[in-house]
Amino acid sequence: MIKVGIVGGTGYTGVELLRILAAHPEVQLTAITSRKEDGLPVAEMYPSLRGRVALKFSSPDKANLTECDVVFFATPHGVAMAQAPALLAAGVKVIDLAADFRLQDVAQFEQWYGMQHSCADLLKEAVYGLPELNREAIKSARLIGNPGCYPTTMQLGFYPLLKAGIIDADNLIADCKSGVSGAGRKAEISLLFSEASDNFKAYSVAGHRHIPETVEQLQKMSSTPVGLIFTPHLVPMIRGMHSTLYAKLNTTIDNAALQELFEKTYQNEAFVDVMPFGSHPETRSTRGSNTLRIALHRPGNGATLVILVAQDNLMKGASGQAVQCMNLMFGLQETCGLTQLPILP
Amino acid sequence: MIKVGIVGGTGYTGVELLRILAAHPEVQLTAITSRKEDGLPVAEMYPSLRGRVALKFSSPDKANLTECDVVFFATPHGVAMAQAPALLAAGVKVIDLAADFRLQDVAQFEQWYGMQHSCADLLKEAVYGLPELNREAIKSARLIGNPGCYPTTMQLGFYPLLKAGIIDADNLIADCKSGVSGAGRKAEISLLFSEASDNFKAYSVAGHRHIPETVEQLQKMSSTPVGLIFTPHLVPMIRGMHSTLYAKLNTTIDNAALQELFEKTYQNEAFVDVMPFGSHPETRSTRGSNTLRIALHRPGNGATLVILVAQDNLMKGASGQAVQCMNLMFGLQETCGLTQLPILP
Amino acid sequence: MIKVGIVGGTGYTGVELLRILAAHPEVQLTAITSRKEDGLPVAEMYPSLRGRVALKFSSPDKANLTECDVVFFATPHGVAMAQAPALLAAGVKVIDLAADFRLQDVAQFEQWYGMQHSCADLLKEAVYGLPELNREAIKSARLIGNPGCYPTTMQLGFYPLLKAGIIDADNLIADCKSGVSGAGRKAEISLLFSEASDNFKAYSVAGHRHIPETVEQLQKMSSTPVGLIFTPHLVPMIRGMHSTLYAKLNTTIDNAALQELFEKTYQNEAFVDVMPFGSHPETRSTRGSNTLRIALHRPGNGATLVILVAQDNLMKGASGQAVQCMNLMFGLQETCGLTQLPILP
Amino acid sequence: MIKVGIVGGTGYTGVELLRILAAHPEVQLTAITSRKEDGLPVAEMYPSLRGRVALKFSSPDKANLTECDVVFFATPHGVAMAQAPALLAAGVKVIDLAADFRLQDVAQFEQWYGMQHSCADLLKEAVYGLPELNREAIKSARLIGNPGCYPTTMQLGFYPLLKAGIIDADNLIADCKSGVSGAGRKAEISLLFSEASDNFKAYSVAGHRHIPETVEQLQKMSSTPVGLIFTPHLVPMIRGMHSTLYAKLNTTIDNAALQELFEKTYQNEAFVDVMPFGSHPETRSTRGSNTLRIALHRPGNGATLVILVAQDNLMKGASGQAVQCMNLMFGLQETCGLTQLPILP
Repeated sequence: MIKVGIVGGTGYTGVELLRILAAHPEVQLTAITSRKEDGLPVAEMYPSLRGRVALKFSSPDKANLTECDVVFFATPHGVAMAQAPALLAAGVKVIDLAADFRLQDVAQFEQWYGMQHSCADLLKEAVYGLPELNREAIKSARLIGNPGCYPTTMQLGFYPLLKAGIIDADNLIADCKSGVSGAGRKAEISLLFSEASDNFKAYSVAGHRHIPETVEQLQKMSSTPVGLIFTPHLVPMIRGMHSTLYAKLNTTIDNAALQELFEKTYQNEAFVDVMPFGSHPETRSTRGSNTLRIALHRPGNGATLVILVAQDNLMKGASGQAVQCMNLMFGLQETCGLTQLPILP
Repeated sequence: MIKVGIVGGTGYTGVELLRILAAHPEVQLTAITSRKEDGLPVAEMYPSLRGRVALKFSSPDKANLTECDVVFFATPHGVAMAQAPALLAAGVKVIDLAADFRLQDVAQFEQWYGMQHSCADLLKEAVYGLPELNREAIKSARLIGNPGCYPTTMQLGFYPLLKAGIIDADNLIADCKSGVSGAGRKAEISLLFSEASDNFKAYSVAGHRHIPETVEQLQKMSSTPVGLIFTPHLVPMIRGMHSTLYAKLNTTIDNAALQELFEKTYQNEAFVDVMPFGSHPETRSTRGSNTLRIALHRPGNGATLVILVAQDNLMKGASGQAVQCMNLMFGLQETCGLTQLPILP
Repeated sequence: MIKVGIVGGTGYTGVELLRILAAHPEVQLTAITSRKEDGLPVAEMYPSLRGRVALKFSSPDKANLTECDVVFFATPHGVAMAQAPALLAAGVKVIDLAADFRLQDVAQFEQWYGMQHSCADLLKEAVYGLPELNREAIKSARLIGNPGCYPTTMQLGFYPLLKAGIIDADNLIADCKSGVSGAGRKAEISLLFSEASDNFKAYSVAGHRHIPETVEQLQKMSSTPVGLIFTPHLVPMIRGMHSTLYAKLNTTIDNAALQELFEKTYQNEAFVDVMPFGSHPETRSTRGSNTLRIALHRPGNGATLVILVAQDNLMKGASGQAVQCMNLMFGLQETCGLTQLPILP
Repeated sequence: MIKVGIVGGTGYTGVELLRILAAHPEVQLTAITSRKEDGLPVAEMYPSLRGRVALKFSSPDKANLTECDVVFFATPHGVAMAQAPALLAAGVKVIDLAADFRLQDVAQFEQWYGMQHSCADLLKEAVYGLPELNREAIKSARLIGNPGCYPTTMQLGFYPLLKAGIIDADNLIADCKSGVSGAGRKAEISLLFSEASDNFKAYSVAGHRHIPETVEQLQKMSSTPVGLIFTPHLVPMIRGMHSTLYAKLNTTIDNAALQELFEKTYQNEAFVDVMPFGSHPETRSTRGSNTLRIALHRPGNGATLVILVAQDNLMKGASGQAVQCMNLMFGLQETCGLTQLPILP
């Protein structure tokens, strides 16, 4: 059994880790830390876990995280980089669900996140935790920067096209929509039910932190410079993320070949479902599961491709993906503990 | 492996059965019927099942249901009673999620459901499928009438009190609230998003079909005549049911003893969670799981008890309970295939 | 034109006052205070008011509230009682939407609200602002305690029955459901979209601040002691309140007479709609309007009456009612500025 | 007083017309037809109108529509073209909220709507009812084709740019999101609460009927050929529409000049609100009102402009716009009866 610790388990990615790991056959939940909630049984904060998770929150100093095999950080940006060096030195693997180890470019990190990076040297060995694109590196990694939710959809949606070099890489548009849980469990006015319900809006159109991460990764797939317009929107739903991606073909290719390109690319992937050409993936078809669904469209058979991508932002977009990485790092089957079927309706 | 057939799998209890059974370790999904959708892969109607359920709908005549070990009816009232006799004769067990085999009183059935009962003789052997109150009979049953969603909450909430004889049985009030999926997957105006969202209302206050079923069962627990006021309401949420039950104590008893009464009654039940006295169970703490949660209140320490009961109407209120019965009928562990953790948020 | 000031206009009752008063033909919005938002145009916080409300928030010291004819307090409990004496002394009328002037019983106030009452002497002249029950007193009042949202529904629902003396006053049950805006515009975790959506729960069942207010008022209608069980619930909708009231008849009376009792009681009321016997009022049929709707039910023609009451908690339950009081205090037509039709869908 | 008739008042644009017109100071509601609901008081179908609309539905033959001054068609496509000729001949003005008189190109109409046009000759005099772009023609029109909801946002968002000739007209992208009421009051499975809630999806990406209408109108603004990719999405909210428009600048222009271009274009428009550069209009800031809000963005100060447009799909997107046209046609103030403030929260 893998001994698992969670730092910062009071947020939504934390409780989602608990939901997955409490039923994971190869995991023993060992410690979960919260400075504020020291001593509180996890199941008192999250009654959904009553009878299933006996663990209590403990303050970080008492938690003995160094006895774990792996520690997940479900914390705000900046926490993991403060604690990762000591854990790694003690032989503990680290998976950070925040942004501390996502960007290789320290200057970009410091500009977008407004803080200094305290262990830039560790960045070199940090592995970007998107298994479909980075599987081998993840297997041997000690330190994972788990991808952002939006970047996961953009990368898996654009990847086959950029790698094939058949779209204009400098003219990508991603019109993305997220459920409210994507903003985390924060007591902010704009996230209140009475503000976010029966409402729709864009936000951070001038610039969102997921841009540098996405561009850094997309650039790896492309031999020409990547240009990306990214427009996030807030949807009145709890979970779910839908990205509508636009790309211009720079070559002649028919729809069957496009579809085949995607199907071949992902044919061995357990968590990427390429739907039939012209499908409309719904976010609810992924609710509670680690599956991401993709469908291709080509309006009027013109040069513009529309790629639709749907996922559960807390699963494939965060905690599910993190467990997928853990499975790889410990030589387990990649799908272990991640076979939950989507809840519909 | 138990060979399972489903009649009428296109509704919400049907797809929920599929979600459970597709991951059930002792079940082989064998047939699913739909007159209208003959030949359609189940996963085309429900993309949430893509890659997980390979079955196609077949018309009833082709379905070879008699080769199944058990057949679930997730159909409108009246369908199961037409087909159950032949299946039973062929040695197939039957679990009906509709009302055909819930009521022992044929006159009541015919009055409330507006149709003749075509196999009243079978009613005598039909077992009411509420395992917590009826476990032994279910184990040896061939034919199960699976309880209604509201009745499940009312029975499990009132049971310890009625059995102990410490409340006025003729003065029960159940103010119940259901998510919209409780009304089924029917193309009706009143169930449209634009009608049911951002709205709350009572319905069928003059009389609802779950009254005779509930009274018939409550009466079995009580040595004095039962009188029940039942007021159902529609809540703008997909899943979830919350019943607020009111009962008058007819004796002197302190709160600790009341709490102990409930805890002892359900101490060995895997799917009934008696929360601490004064708790407020949330429906979402049961979302997607087979757990029902109960909490006791006694405002002002007076004679009126308030019992709060929450469940997922499609799980413990319907399909989860049906699989719980199936597990008992086939000698499996009662929790087999029913250990899904609630999805929160 | 009546010069109107608003203290604490950043909450939901504040912005609702603004929506009403900005279109009120006899009102000139003169000042709106907010300590935190001094200088901010109201329309920047509430873009819904762009082009319609030119006012800026000003800090209380700059606001010259004494030049107003009337000041509304849309503030937390405790603010109005600190400022009302000076305003009244300056000849300004005061309408408090919080609880400072609702209860005549100071001990009850201090017990339930956990603060001392700083101007208990003013309570004697404070008038409870429920026009349907208290119209003449409101007309000549200088100081109004505007009713709570839940108490409005309970009082208007029980009033005809208590006044007629035909129900057991000591055995009233009110099972009430509120939209989330009833909890105000507060940055609290439990009010987040991801917590409150797709969920239903009871809260404060052990005791809610609206109990003493309601009992104090109901007692005025009844010659026998009032006993009330009040169970509030949170509904995943923005606006809307639905109270399901239970009362035991203590006399023989037929349904037509009951219906007539309600219709006669409210026949001249512009904002109380007695629907046909057996109707199910929906909250959305009141959304954005000052109308409260009532319908009577008598399940099984027994002794228990079920009274259904629906309103918009921010209108008849708060700001609309406050403006109704203002109209009466200034000799305007009671419906002036309050003729908005409900928004449906 | 203008005598107004409504054909097909049972849908959402119908009840929204009723909400507006029942409070319109210059209108007398004279007739409302429904074949199915003949004799039913309108307020029984829509309790929100109780006490405010006394009219009953009448079957078309009894309705005496020829005595009206103007008739609104809130009907499925194809109804208005069957009845308009006789009404026009009788001197009645006609405003069709469906598509019968939106397209000048009959072949396009017949291709996209799958029916023959029965009065193509009338198309020549039909006026496209978008007042901001077509005011003078509307004033003297007898027959109005009221714009579609999506097309209204796309036209008002792209218009200043296309007219100025500063964007690539052949490379427009409109990623649009609509509340569920946009699909009408139809008993369809996909519109059920349990299907559409807590979910997000694109639909009709291969081609939507609003494309030919929009392209026909956009082409009028542009001296070069228009190319449009239009991707509609369904949002789990009742009302509201948000269009995220993408256009490539073909010239050097700074943001201040872009902002000024929009502000000048719409400076005299009562119902178009150009927000400060970089704003994020929310749909709820328009809920229940006839105002459409626009904001400009230019990510990274590059060549791609992002134009955000929000409106209430039932108001500016349908019934509000139709009444705006009526006001113009009858020489009333354009804002008459259309000054409802948005409901927020």
